[in-house]
Amino acid sequence: MDYILGVDGGGTTCRAAIATADGRLLGRGTAGPANIYSDPAQSVKSISFAANEACKDAGLTEEALQQTVAVLGLAGANAHHDPEGLAQTLPFASAQIVTDTVIALEGAHGAGDGVIGIVGTGSNFMARKGGQHYYLGGWGFHCGDQGSGAKMGERALEEALLAHDGLRRLCPLTEHILRQFDDDPRKLSEFARSAKPKDFAEFMPIILIYAQQQSSLALDIVEEGTTYVASALRLLSDDGKLPIALLGGLSQAYDAFLPPDLKQFIVPAKSDALHGALAMAERQNASNP
Amino acid sequence: MDYILGVDGGGTTCRAAIATADGRLLGRGTAGPANIYSDPAQSVKSISFAANEACKDAGLTEEALQQTVAVLGLAGANAHHDPEGLAQTLPFASAQIVTDTVIALEGAHGAGDGVIGIVGTGSNFMARKGGQHYYLGGWGFHCGDQGSGAKMGERALEEALLAHDGLRRLCPLTEHILRQFDDDPRKLSEFARSAKPKDFAEFMPIILIYAQQQSSLALDIVEEGTTYVASALRLLSDDGKLPIALLGGLSQAYDAFLPPDLKQFIVPAKSDALHGALAMAERQNASNP
Repeated sequence: MDYILGVDGGGTTCRAAIATADGRLLGRGTAGPANIYSDPAQSVKSISFAANEACKDAGLTEEALQQTVAVLGLAGANAHHDPEGLAQTLPFASAQIVTDTVIALEGAHGAGDGVIGIVGTGSNFMARKGGQHYYLGGWGFHCGDQGSGAKMGERALEEALLAHDGLRRLCPLTEHILRQFDDDPRKLSEFARSAKPKDFAEFMPIILIYAQQQSSLALDIVEEGTTYVASALRLLSDDGKLPIALLGGLSQAYDAFLPPDLKQFIVPAKSDALHGALAMAERQNASNP
Repeated sequence: MDYILGVDGGGTTCRAAIATADGRLLGRGTAGPANIYSDPAQSVKSISFAANEACKDAGLTEEALQQTVAVLGLAGANAHHDPEGLAQTLPFASAQIVTDTVIALEGAHGAGDGVIGIVGTGSNFMARKGGQHYYLGGWGFHCGDQGSGAKMGERALEEALLAHDGLRRLCPLTEHILRQFDDDPRKLSEFARSAKPKDFAEFMPIILIYAQQQSSLALDIVEEGTTYVASALRLLSDDGKLPIALLGGLSQAYDAFLPPDLKQFIVPAKSDALHGALAMAERQNASNP
């Protein structure tokens, strides 16, 4: 095929990039949500829109898409019942749907083996060993996502209520949080009742600030998260036998918190998930001439 | 007034009882949900329906309600912005709205001082000391309700996913839970995504069974809950200076788990919340002749 296309489709944004068969970038496009599990119809719409925008940006007509090999990394692809069926409804010569984690790993480590930890609002982990993929975590806010901003934020709010009730000593972090709710625990409880994971995660910056000031509760919360993230990375990397890349909004924070024996195996990501998808599309196009 | 009426209005059921001014029970009625915070209109409907049913059961016409002093213990009364205003829309000669916790305490301890712990799907605590009310906990599933069936159930599911991921050893409890989801963690995660507190609480019976068999994770979960419940009860009772009654679906379980020094202060509830509401109405009627 003449062109390759990569798509990085997340829960809020879908990004697409089109390139020549040998990987020269021609154009980019963006669109709205593309989680294929939570809203497949919207996902298809966003993918098509972002791909058309990329064509326009490249000075190509939409017909170019029929000459395009696409790799799409989509949030929710692991939970969707028929990604292959959905791929066939897309306007590309061929399309492969994988999870957004797979293209993130490809972006971070290239075609080789390695481990990624994506730690932001949620948390999840993946390894490629001898070409095989291994997933860990990513089970969602309720019974998973340990070490994520959402979980650590929720824990901080819980501690603030315990302190209000007199079951813990008040500390700078819990005082700060209670003040944000006008020292009215009912307002905090009301907030928590309808809060989404990203709302809990918004308390992460102040947790990190108090942790830096050696405030003991903040350190305790961060340590709990670090213990989980470290165990996950150790298990997937066979104790550091594979390179590890940390991605997501909390990657820098964890870079500082992880124990030194693990930190030595951490490498910077080679590139981002969208480039990972493009690289996979290029490989796929080359292997099917 | 000629009659007194008590109402116990919870999130799923509303119960009413009408009696003579000196407390002789005449009739009972039940209706649907009566949480005045989450749905005030439905609450008023349920209260009126249950009160009318109680009249019918007593062989009275609805006009009797105009000769009735009512005390209504309603879930959500602490969060509603204007319980007095709402009370005036009800068909009674006079109506006092309190939380369902207040009538539960009245039922359990009579007019005297005491502490109650309500531990079931959620958890919350209350004390009456020298006629003053003190609340503790009850902040809801997300950042509160420690020691409740919902929280302990959620923790068990979390541990099952950690065991599936290889971050914990599998144990009889986590094996049991994973089997319930056909050993497919995606099914568990999917369940957790939409589960309500009562759905998590449904795992409590098997946690208790494995705890009885001395299975270490189950014991650990129960111990964590017990630590919280014990601290709450100690704090509110001034280390046992007030009698403590345990109510709710997990009260028997906690009766067994609580440490002996606390257990000695636990007394059986004198009667239930509906009788508590009736007793309060009788007292109120007697004090306003």
